[in-house]
Amino acid sequence: MRKSLHLHVVTWHRTLTKTLHFHSFSSPPSCTFLGPNLPDVWVPREDNTSPHTLLPEKFQWANDGHSAAILEGKAIAKQIKLKVADEISRMKTEIGKFPKLAVVLVGDRRDSHTFIHIKLKACEKVGIETVVSELPENCTENELLDVVSSFNDDKDHLDEERIVNVVSPEKDVDGFHPLNIGNLAIRGRKPFFIPCASKSCIELLLRHGVEIKGKRVAIIGRSKIAGLPTSLLLQRHHATVSLLHAYTKNPEQITSEADIVIADVGIPNIVRGNWIKKGAVIIDMGTNQVKDPSSQVFRITGDVYFEEAVKVASAITPVPGGVGPVTISMLLSNTLDSAKRAFGMV
Amino acid sequence: MRKSLHLHVVTWHRTLTKTLHFHSFSSPPSCTFLGPNLPDVWVPREDNTSPHTLLPEKFQWANDGHSAAILEGKAIAKQIKLKVADEISRMKTEIGKFPKLAVVLVGDRRDSHTFIHIKLKACEKVGIETVVSELPENCTENELLDVVSSFNDDKDHLDEERIVNVVSPEKDVDGFHPLNIGNLAIRGRKPFFIPCASKSCIELLLRHGVEIKGKRVAIIGRSKIAGLPTSLLLQRHHATVSLLHAYTKNPEQITSEADIVIADVGIPNIVRGNWIKKGAVIIDMGTNQVKDPSSQVFRITGDVYFEEAVKVASAITPVPGGVGPVTISMLLSNTLDSAKRAFGMV
Repeated sequence: MRKSLHLHVVTWHRTLTKTLHFHSFSSPPSCTFLGPNLPDVWVPREDNTSPHTLLPEKFQWANDGHSAAILEGKAIAKQIKLKVADEISRMKTEIGKFPKLAVVLVGDRRDSHTFIHIKLKACEKVGIETVVSELPENCTENELLDVVSSFNDDKDHLDEERIVNVVSPEKDVDGFHPLNIGNLAIRGRKPFFIPCASKSCIELLLRHGVEIKGKRVAIIGRSKIAGLPTSLLLQRHHATVSLLHAYTKNPEQITSEADIVIADVGIPNIVRGNWIKKGAVIIDMGTNQVKDPSSQVFRITGDVYFEEAVKVASAITPVPGGVGPVTISMLLSNTLDSAKRAFGMV
Repeated sequence: MRKSLHLHVVTWHRTLTKTLHFHSFSSPPSCTFLGPNLPDVWVPREDNTSPHTLLPEKFQWANDGHSAAILEGKAIAKQIKLKVADEISRMKTEIGKFPKLAVVLVGDRRDSHTFIHIKLKACEKVGIETVVSELPENCTENELLDVVSSFNDDKDHLDEERIVNVVSPEKDVDGFHPLNIGNLAIRGRKPFFIPCASKSCIELLLRHGVEIKGKRVAIIGRSKIAGLPTSLLLQRHHATVSLLHAYTKNPEQITSEADIVIADVGIPNIVRGNWIKKGAVIIDMGTNQVKDPSSQVFRITGDVYFEEAVKVASAITPVPGGVGPVTISMLLSNTLDSAKRAFGMV
């Protein structure tokens, strides 16, 4: 488990997107940047292997044969992708242009490669062109800036003081620019883009008929790409949000009071069945690569101990097949939106 | 009580600041904007007049003669003001310039006038020049933009599409621009300015030796000028924050679990003694003007029922004399910082 955590902490995983003119390069460049993902250092609890010990009786994982509804993401993702593909097709016909996504990968982290492969395949299917640049883990900031600049035709918009400012908020398909995060935090304002994982979370809840307004939500983990923006987005939807992190002294207690639990920790199976209130809805954002000791094969596992949680929750997303595919489809959708804005189609 | 709430909802209260060159107007203009304060519509609970009924025994307001420490703000405010005055004095001597604060007041809300009078007096004492523009409540956006523009020499920086974008984040002494809010939300980033009320809250906690890291915090109310940014700031200080609002179904239950309670509701005395965990620290951001039925005189009262809360909390800010004066001093401090940045002194 520590190995997976370690990987999350030390590696940078950066995504850049660019929307290019089809025949010439005269259209506004579109380029985005996903900053280093440095989640809190969560230490797996020693008592993590023995459930039933943390909370009073009423919070304990039930053994009565109940099984939660599974919030599948694949069907939702498919619908979104079909819509995106259709719009891109029309864009090509009408103005002869289409979106392009540029991905810059720093370091050779295994799961980054996996995710990027999935993203590229998804782009290809809907008609988004892709280009990938790989840089070594120890690359300098200037080397990275050079790559970003090479994707950016309009040098006037570059602010080389800080890498992230290279990306204009209108092209920030990851929704990660502080201006977009600020406009997400403040009610009544509209960010250009909302982070894909957060949109995926809301999409899964709403499409499965889960009411958010007035519900108590525990978000476990405050990564910049998932937990933090999701806390802001759910607050905008009038949930009462508690944001838990590595400094939280009793995450299982606060989690056990929540109607909706969002896990974004980066440690496989850390959220146990006895953390969950009976009937709660669980969104598992974890995508941890765990090596099977017998077969030596890597498999993706979530932050929630699924086999326990499914017995007490009313609904739960599977990993893989829950948040992941919907998040990918949101990246496609955001990329399309960016292209439409650049081409004056909105 | 409803009257006070109503006033909070319908009136705009905008602050603009400008940093001007002393002898000429060649220095960069400094201009900020505080958006409309539209808090949630909180309805005073019917059972608000009878404490002891909401929570189980252990949460009840104690009657054992205990009295919380009073977290006085005046002394802290005085220290900050002295420091600001000293720096402005040196600025005048060294470069012959000083900061100037412009306030634009829309509508004739009583408490806005009161607060602005306090701000102007505080500015005068530390050497910040002030100018006030008053506009009627029903003024158009363009009329307001004209006033903002009249304070802004550098027309090139104006984006008249949306009023708030008129203010450049570097001059936003209220810390209210979405770029500043976004940089406040994201760990590792540094906003140019942090909202004054939120800074006041942290200042009061830290100067009175209250540890924030790992503490459970309930923030009741999510106004753009206080509750929301304070939730972001306390999260940055590693508190476990729950943000409560008008859609929260059981605010007293969640509040009763908190080590630190921040009240930003806008309803006098809504937070009762039995909402408070024994030993909790209470920061009361409420500044409600209540008319005394006998004397017909207005007095300022907080959101917390002080006489009850003082018996169960370990420490509590008074209203007036707690958050208010420190907030004013933070506005002075932010204005000084803006001037220093404009004059290249940082």
